[in-house]
Amino acid sequence: MTTPLKIGIAGLGTVGAGTVDVLNTHGTQLIHRAGRPLEITAVSARDKSKDRGVDLSGVTWHDDPIALASDPNVDLVAELIGGSDGIAKDLCEAALAAGKHVVTANKALIAHHGTVLAETAETNSACLAYEAAVAGGIPIIKALREGLAANRIDSLYGILNGTCNYILTNMAESGREFEDVLDEAQQLGYAEADPSFDIDGVDAAHKLAILASLAFGTAVDFGGVHVEGIRHVSPIDIEFAAELGYGIKLLGVARRTDAGIEQRVHPCMVPVDAPINHVRGVFNAVEVVGDFVDRTIYQGRGAGAGPTASAVVADIIDIARGGRVPAFGVPTAALKPAATVAMESHQGPYYVRLMVVDEPGVFAGIAASLSDHSVSMESVLQRGRAPGEPVPVVMTVHDTKEADMVKTLDDIAGLSAVVETPRMIRIEMV
Amino acid sequence: MTTPLKIGIAGLGTVGAGTVDVLNTHGTQLIHRAGRPLEITAVSARDKSKDRGVDLSGVTWHDDPIALASDPNVDLVAELIGGSDGIAKDLCEAALAAGKHVVTANKALIAHHGTVLAETAETNSACLAYEAAVAGGIPIIKALREGLAANRIDSLYGILNGTCNYILTNMAESGREFEDVLDEAQQLGYAEADPSFDIDGVDAAHKLAILASLAFGTAVDFGGVHVEGIRHVSPIDIEFAAELGYGIKLLGVARRTDAGIEQRVHPCMVPVDAPINHVRGVFNAVEVVGDFVDRTIYQGRGAGAGPTASAVVADIIDIARGGRVPAFGVPTAALKPAATVAMESHQGPYYVRLMVVDEPGVFAGIAASLSDHSVSMESVLQRGRAPGEPVPVVMTVHDTKEADMVKTLDDIAGLSAVVETPRMIRIEMV
Repeated sequence: MTTPLKIGIAGLGTVGAGTVDVLNTHGTQLIHRAGRPLEITAVSARDKSKDRGVDLSGVTWHDDPIALASDPNVDLVAELIGGSDGIAKDLCEAALAAGKHVVTANKALIAHHGTVLAETAETNSACLAYEAAVAGGIPIIKALREGLAANRIDSLYGILNGTCNYILTNMAESGREFEDVLDEAQQLGYAEADPSFDIDGVDAAHKLAILASLAFGTAVDFGGVHVEGIRHVSPIDIEFAAELGYGIKLLGVARRTDAGIEQRVHPCMVPVDAPINHVRGVFNAVEVVGDFVDRTIYQGRGAGAGPTASAVVADIIDIARGGRVPAFGVPTAALKPAATVAMESHQGPYYVRLMVVDEPGVFAGIAASLSDHSVSMESVLQRGRAPGEPVPVVMTVHDTKEADMVKTLDDIAGLSAVVETPRMIRIEMV
Repeated sequence: MTTPLKIGIAGLGTVGAGTVDVLNTHGTQLIHRAGRPLEITAVSARDKSKDRGVDLSGVTWHDDPIALASDPNVDLVAELIGGSDGIAKDLCEAALAAGKHVVTANKALIAHHGTVLAETAETNSACLAYEAAVAGGIPIIKALREGLAANRIDSLYGILNGTCNYILTNMAESGREFEDVLDEAQQLGYAEADPSFDIDGVDAAHKLAILASLAFGTAVDFGGVHVEGIRHVSPIDIEFAAELGYGIKLLGVARRTDAGIEQRVHPCMVPVDAPINHVRGVFNAVEVVGDFVDRTIYQGRGAGAGPTASAVVADIIDIARGGRVPAFGVPTAALKPAATVAMESHQGPYYVRLMVVDEPGVFAGIAASLSDHSVSMESVLQRGRAPGEPVPVVMTVHDTKEADMVKTLDDIAGLSAVVETPRMIRIEMV
């Protein structure tokens, strides 16, 4: 039997307790997979007296998590505290600087500071691993970093936030309003009391920035991600989407284009028979397109104690075995600058919904606005006619530049017959 | 720049030429991912003069592939010849015995001799890698061996043969007969001139045996796989399946049961909204259920030059980086005997179709046969009535032991009103 890998766990919330549970449950079998025993030697969490349902007998308790970084009886720190800065960042920096490996589930931290932390890891011959930071139990980091390493990745599309996917799935199935379904999701524990981080797309954007870096060999560029959430998705748009042969999903999209890398999170219309449209409820999925492998898709639970702990422990096993893959697949010195292109230069088809009072000349005005910006209409739908009352008019347009689309909608919004802000949803032919 | 990894390629068919293509196309970027240059130093194939559209200038040619095993200028042999025995096996044995790493796309070889080859690799401190042997470009070997290593795997379900999935998808969409669609698949190059290896389930069984070994930490037991192909699937069964809320797929299933490990390949009815039922055409998919991670699903192209070469080169990169994960995830000494249970002890729901001449007492006879073997009916459908002519009668039955189901169908086949052999398809609640 070789030397055990000595693990210090920082944070004993859902994921931390789950990680202890995995290691306690499968310890004996994991010796064979890891090539050596995996031993929890130290932990740190807020309240020592709290019962977390896991056995921590014989484990050193540190009130200050930073103490794990200097504990000589710790080889690897599992940072399961969370937050892009503060204690989580301090701990990871200190641990890596001390030559200890770091495994983290912290997407915000990696999205904001991943490249710098990876440099610190390299300098100190330590590993930085973060499989659990993206898409829970799905081994998507490993797939991009290793499994697809032979490819030039051209694009990836992800359902990266289970809360949003739960809400959109539920809206589509029940026809109910966003607020109504969000309330229910909160009651069921699928959405936080303050849900903005999820529903405004920030959480998905963290994950997308990480995936994009791995896919394209670029420095993590969270600031370059264009982010829109799902607050404005309405049942009427879901209904029209279905009529046009689409479903609505919040996607993280990263694409290689001639102008640079697109990184964006926003509601998308996807073809109704696209595999990603079949991903329902709290499940996550990532579709990756590579030049040799073509399209591969990965699905599973994106959150929860078990799936996230599964990913944390997979990273621990890799490190125990002596795996030394760079955090972003290539040495940090080989990472290219992100070269994210601005959203204005995005080009693609769009869905547009206007609320229009049916009066003479209204269509002429809309058509002129489209034509002024060289936007070419693909189809138009009008449902219902109520003289004097606003009715929805829905269009899809062929490949258009985002900047032109925005100007067109500005013009249309100025027409007297158009009430409410025009809504636009990008169509993504995944 | 560190020492190059020197690669000898055996076989320059579709996959071999594809592998050369990947290495030639992405050589420069792969240095960063592999941590060192990947250099093709030697090749061996049947016909030196044949133009394969790849540049092999400066590469040593060996007429005899076995010579790669003793070429001092080769660190790693990529065995892309194929076949469970003969030259492919001799080469892999010789290369591993000489301490050279082996990367192979050969599912038959690994299914038949994987455990012994892994032992030889271990003894000689060499790696044996075979990502390309299962599901083409999908990194499913890596997912099971590393990404899900924290879990006890409970079951896996795979669409492992693109030819069969193409045929079944096409039959479902067109309503055409098996032979008809097979002919077309052969013309389109999706099925071989002699298609039996694919359509009789042997190819899927090779892959399933490999996945089961990885999933359960058991020695590869190809002989223990129960195998049925798709020749008997008829349009009428596909139609009834749809009516009952199912699709028909050829699945490889490996399941942990109280009695032991089930390994089986056969047509299955799966719920129409199950993710695996949406996998169409030549695509492959594998669904894995682990105790902590729950369900994860992997999809992609299961064959073809690009996807297979993507997997071959991913293995080469892992080895170049110094990754030393055991071939089956644990040392061979830790692999348990397979303990595959016989198909007779399988238990599950079934679909049964009889062709019955509608005469008095026929249902009483069928009901008696079911009751004699304690088989409990869930639903029954009869379509059409033509006095004196056989009509289909379709039943689904609740969880039943395979042995009882077989005896029941034997009894039913003996009833005078039952013409044709009763057909049975297992229902799998994936």
